[in-house]
Amino acid sequence: MAEEVVKVESRTVDPAEQQMLKRAQAEGIETIWDRADKMKPCPIGSEGACCRICSQGPCRVPPPKKAKPGEEQKKQAVGVCGATAETIVARNFARMVAAGSAAHTDHARGVAHLFKEVAHGRAPGYELKDAGKLRAIARDYDVPLSVGEGDDKKSRSKEEIAQDLAEKVLAEFGQQSGELVFSSKRAPKKRVELWRGLDVMPRGFDREVVEIMHRTHMGVDQDYKNIIHQCTRCAISDGWGGSMLATELQDVLFGTPVPVLGDSNLGVLKEDHVNVIIHGHEPLLPELINAASQDPEMLEYAKSKGAKGIQLAGICCSANEILMRHGIPVAANFLGQELAIITGAVDAMVVDVQCQFQALASLVKCFHTKLITTDERGRIEGETMYIPFDDHHGPEIARKVLKEAIDNFPNRRAPVIIPEQKYPCVVGFSMETIRYLLGGSIRGSYYTLNDNIIGGRVRGIGGVVGCNNVRTLHDNAHLSMVKELIKNDVVVLTTGCNAIACAKEGLLTPEAAIKYCGAGLAEVCETVGIPPVLHMGSCVDNARILLAAAACVRAGGLGNDISDLPAAGAAPEWMSEKAISIGHYFVSSGVYTIFSAAWPTTGSEILTDYLFHGLESELGGMWDFELDPVVAAQKMIAHIDKKRAALGIDKARERVLFDMAMRREMETATGGE
Amino acid sequence: MAEEVVKVESRTVDPAEQQMLKRAQAEGIETIWDRADKMKPCPIGSEGACCRICSQGPCRVPPPKKAKPGEEQKKQAVGVCGATAETIVARNFARMVAAGSAAHTDHARGVAHLFKEVAHGRAPGYELKDAGKLRAIARDYDVPLSVGEGDDKKSRSKEEIAQDLAEKVLAEFGQQSGELVFSSKRAPKKRVELWRGLDVMPRGFDREVVEIMHRTHMGVDQDYKNIIHQCTRCAISDGWGGSMLATELQDVLFGTPVPVLGDSNLGVLKEDHVNVIIHGHEPLLPELINAASQDPEMLEYAKSKGAKGIQLAGICCSANEILMRHGIPVAANFLGQELAIITGAVDAMVVDVQCQFQALASLVKCFHTKLITTDERGRIEGETMYIPFDDHHGPEIARKVLKEAIDNFPNRRAPVIIPEQKYPCVVGFSMETIRYLLGGSIRGSYYTLNDNIIGGRVRGIGGVVGCNNVRTLHDNAHLSMVKELIKNDVVVLTTGCNAIACAKEGLLTPEAAIKYCGAGLAEVCETVGIPPVLHMGSCVDNARILLAAAACVRAGGLGNDISDLPAAGAAPEWMSEKAISIGHYFVSSGVYTIFSAAWPTTGSEILTDYLFHGLESELGGMWDFELDPVVAAQKMIAHIDKKRAALGIDKARERVLFDMAMRREMETATGGE
Repeated sequence: MAEEVVKVESRTVDPAEQQMLKRAQAEGIETIWDRADKMKPCPIGSEGACCRICSQGPCRVPPPKKAKPGEEQKKQAVGVCGATAETIVARNFARMVAAGSAAHTDHARGVAHLFKEVAHGRAPGYELKDAGKLRAIARDYDVPLSVGEGDDKKSRSKEEIAQDLAEKVLAEFGQQSGELVFSSKRAPKKRVELWRGLDVMPRGFDREVVEIMHRTHMGVDQDYKNIIHQCTRCAISDGWGGSMLATELQDVLFGTPVPVLGDSNLGVLKEDHVNVIIHGHEPLLPELINAASQDPEMLEYAKSKGAKGIQLAGICCSANEILMRHGIPVAANFLGQELAIITGAVDAMVVDVQCQFQALASLVKCFHTKLITTDERGRIEGETMYIPFDDHHGPEIARKVLKEAIDNFPNRRAPVIIPEQKYPCVVGFSMETIRYLLGGSIRGSYYTLNDNIIGGRVRGIGGVVGCNNVRTLHDNAHLSMVKELIKNDVVVLTTGCNAIACAKEGLLTPEAAIKYCGAGLAEVCETVGIPPVLHMGSCVDNARILLAAAACVRAGGLGNDISDLPAAGAAPEWMSEKAISIGHYFVSSGVYTIFSAAWPTTGSEILTDYLFHGLESELGGMWDFELDPVVAAQKMIAHIDKKRAALGIDKARERVLFDMAMRREMETATGGE
Repeated sequence: MAEEVVKVESRTVDPAEQQMLKRAQAEGIETIWDRADKMKPCPIGSEGACCRICSQGPCRVPPPKKAKPGEEQKKQAVGVCGATAETIVARNFARMVAAGSAAHTDHARGVAHLFKEVAHGRAPGYELKDAGKLRAIARDYDVPLSVGEGDDKKSRSKEEIAQDLAEKVLAEFGQQSGELVFSSKRAPKKRVELWRGLDVMPRGFDREVVEIMHRTHMGVDQDYKNIIHQCTRCAISDGWGGSMLATELQDVLFGTPVPVLGDSNLGVLKEDHVNVIIHGHEPLLPELINAASQDPEMLEYAKSKGAKGIQLAGICCSANEILMRHGIPVAANFLGQELAIITGAVDAMVVDVQCQFQALASLVKCFHTKLITTDERGRIEGETMYIPFDDHHGPEIARKVLKEAIDNFPNRRAPVIIPEQKYPCVVGFSMETIRYLLGGSIRGSYYTLNDNIIGGRVRGIGGVVGCNNVRTLHDNAHLSMVKELIKNDVVVLTTGCNAIACAKEGLLTPEAAIKYCGAGLAEVCETVGIPPVLHMGSCVDNARILLAAAACVRAGGLGNDISDLPAAGAAPEWMSEKAISIGHYFVSSGVYTIFSAAWPTTGSEILTDYLFHGLESELGGMWDFELDPVVAAQKMIAHIDKKRAALGIDKARERVLFDMAMRREMETATGGE
């Protein structure tokens, strides 16, 4: 028993999850940690040094072991076709970018299709909620906001604007040449010019993915730098394309997030309620499930089955979406998806696409939980039921899903054990909200942030995002890194599973500033009334971080490009191909980006060196890897300090450290707000 | 020395290549066979049972070994996320379809872009050669061929038609919904209805590839049948989309192939000529290099450098393209690419995309050969030079490439050893040419073929295509299978590296009918004056086989669908992802398709069974695998006989086998030509 306790602590830092893991162990229920213990990762594959591109292999080209004294050094192997380790590892990396970008783009596609249907009034249950953002996007896409001239000038309706906009955004998915609107209009001018000069401006969302798949086919692109070049183009089409479009259109449809209070961890489930877990990435159906869950008729129905009400809770990025917009509590991040079911309290888990374990299908059989798939692209063998979402029958489908959950409430058969852990969090920090908080609706600007950075209260900006990874202690890297950053006055922008980890630790509260931050950052947080870790949303919402970075550049005082900012990005527990695409679009946008947990190119020292160092001279940003999350945070801080020095604001920072009075004086002198 | 002789015979059946392999061995030059000897294929990866989709693995889930008596049977492992062997193997298979389809689509994209430029008169060196085919395609795409009505009716110029058509075909790459023109208009009606019923009609070329990449991302599609469903949609968008479009537009630009005499094997190189090898897949630049090689100025220049002339020769599918249209000799197929250089006679090897060994870059350093890359998507580290092709400067670029080769002629430093083997071949059997040969330009129809099939002279049709694979004796499977088929009166349609193998063996001559064929097929070949193995072109030209199959169905008498035809497909030495996409579009079109050399889904018996048997009830076609090429041919024949029986024409065939007189009588009775 003592051993078991040690074991669960070696699996997750979260006490609620530890409790569920103990239950799983006691009842012989298998979780991802058990499977991970049994499954030794392939050492060659994890280096990226395995080529399965043609059927003459798979060829394995790991770096040869260093010869012992007196032995002859073995030569680096190449594939049967002569493909070098550089080529092979770069191709594998490129296909990760392709798959990650495809996932985001395909998410955006669904949103864009729904947006069109809403614009034409063909999608009941939806509306064009954020007219301001609609107009802002329309402006970028050159969709007229009014008709007529002079006295005859008339504003166009939201619907008219949206109908035109829908055609234009849908065209970008298949666009074959030219440039994408956001990547050419929203990135800083200097960055756009750099991209044009390097010939990495994406031509269309889908085309760049397809071209990676072609180039990485046997016998096509066999020059690692040229392969990475196409990765850059494809990743930009994700970050400044598919992902950004998904985020922006979701804001139009569901509202741009503003600060809202939420709860997190498994304690959000309620024994006497119908518990419905929303798990996945696309908020289209979850928005309507949320609406339906407040429908008196549904509540009445729930009561008729003996429940006191309906409790929605989220997992993964669908969680982040409905948390950010409606304060719906979040139950867990990626690694907690099984543990939620193990409470015995989940009446239905509703999934769409990305990051769902196939193991859920067998796990739900140990309990009463219904596993409901809702997307034709994401079926799970053994799913309890498949209720396909479609744009035209949303509310009906949402009610059907909820009804299935409610009908299942009386079927609970295992004892319900809900951990007590539940932490509040303040979320909803969209790019626009941060701007507003920094200066109100009229004079709102990132200049206040820049000013604090210049003055040294805030040392820099860290974007900490990404998944969980069973190969590293759950949430530990997320929390250690974020705490190290805020301790050193680096404000953290977070999304995805990192955001949920931070929520569960109480880092998404203004109080965390006092508890965890350096004096400078704490002061700023206190003044503005924000947490030191700002939850910006889901994985596709990493585009919000790009927009925030661009806003910082535009606000002035911190150089002319994202690469000039004292900023760094990280994904300390990444596991998915999306994370690689995201990381690469940050690097391509000029950001120093460090990953922990694993690194997929160690099979080629040359390629790795190119990604870690070579890219800096081309793109201003570069990759890095460090297993220890605290050391990784320190490397981010070192990069931030390097950028501060280049901007000539390192002196200010020194004063901050040594003399608060001097700092205040200096800020007055530089005309800080 | 004796050992060496044995060894080269165990590598290739081609004596010319054996000679070059001996030279390589004698001079210590490494070839793909040496690398293959050193590189043990990963047994788990080759089963498709390795998942590298997220960074928590790679997880390996090979089928467990059968327990010995008394031992407990080990359970089938799953990935850490719970992904089953079915899911993992299906995902790997799906990504092969995605990459293969991407390669063909991206090839088509280049052709379509050039076509547009030619239509607008912006691409010097090119013209719209086949106006008839242009009009046929335009009709399918609803591009008007004339303007005005009645007496005012006026034909539109080729250029006008092509300009409109270019916009329409380019739109299909990025198309997001609806159907593709060829897949809905050119496949048999019954097939189209089947596809619509199954919801596998592709919506656009690029979208289907991107959707596979999304679905195969961690935690998305985890139902193997659903994954294969998307493979079907993507593969159809290759065969009846990208590949078909590439073929058709190339015919418009460069001419639809008609029978032409060519030469094959390394003996086509000439010691006293500048030898230029064209290697790759896209004929855009090769067409112009061919034209430039006949330019008196270039010939004069070659003579000024001491050469008697310029000898172009092809390798891989670029070879097939210029062989089919201009009778340019073919030097080798895939596995011969290094051996051509080892002659010491190749002054330049000009490559574009797909199937080029990266090893070429180091190999050319042992000789004087220049390795010239010409496509920005296909660079090779260490390439001698990069001369990028672009639509607007074609002739200039072609001359530049040739000049580099000529300039290199005096630099030969190794003794030139050119094998004497050189075999003639008759090629150029496009779908239209076969129709013409079967009945002239007016009454041309596949009915003559059908009639011979019904009558039993021709037992059925075999499409034998695909690559080489170093893991199987070079060309042996190609030749054994084809010979077994034609011996049994199965006419063979061939493309790609199979076509080149057949050319080198003399199977692409009318004389082969007498030497290798059963009596029925021999008689037909003799009557029509064709070889028993009809060379239809390159890999993308497998679409011609689809069109020929559709023409057979339309001609009547053999059912209403491709799946009713006594036909089968095979790729006995496949190695590339393109082959899997091609195979799957044949299966999706209703064809029994058997591969040899390797099979990538053995990691899941359930998935393999679904591909080999389950698909038949859905699609009419199914996959199969058989290592022995002769047995594989017999399985094709068995399938052909099954289809003959279903059509009720098996009796006719029985008579053929037993009584020639009876057969003749019966044919007269059924009104054979």
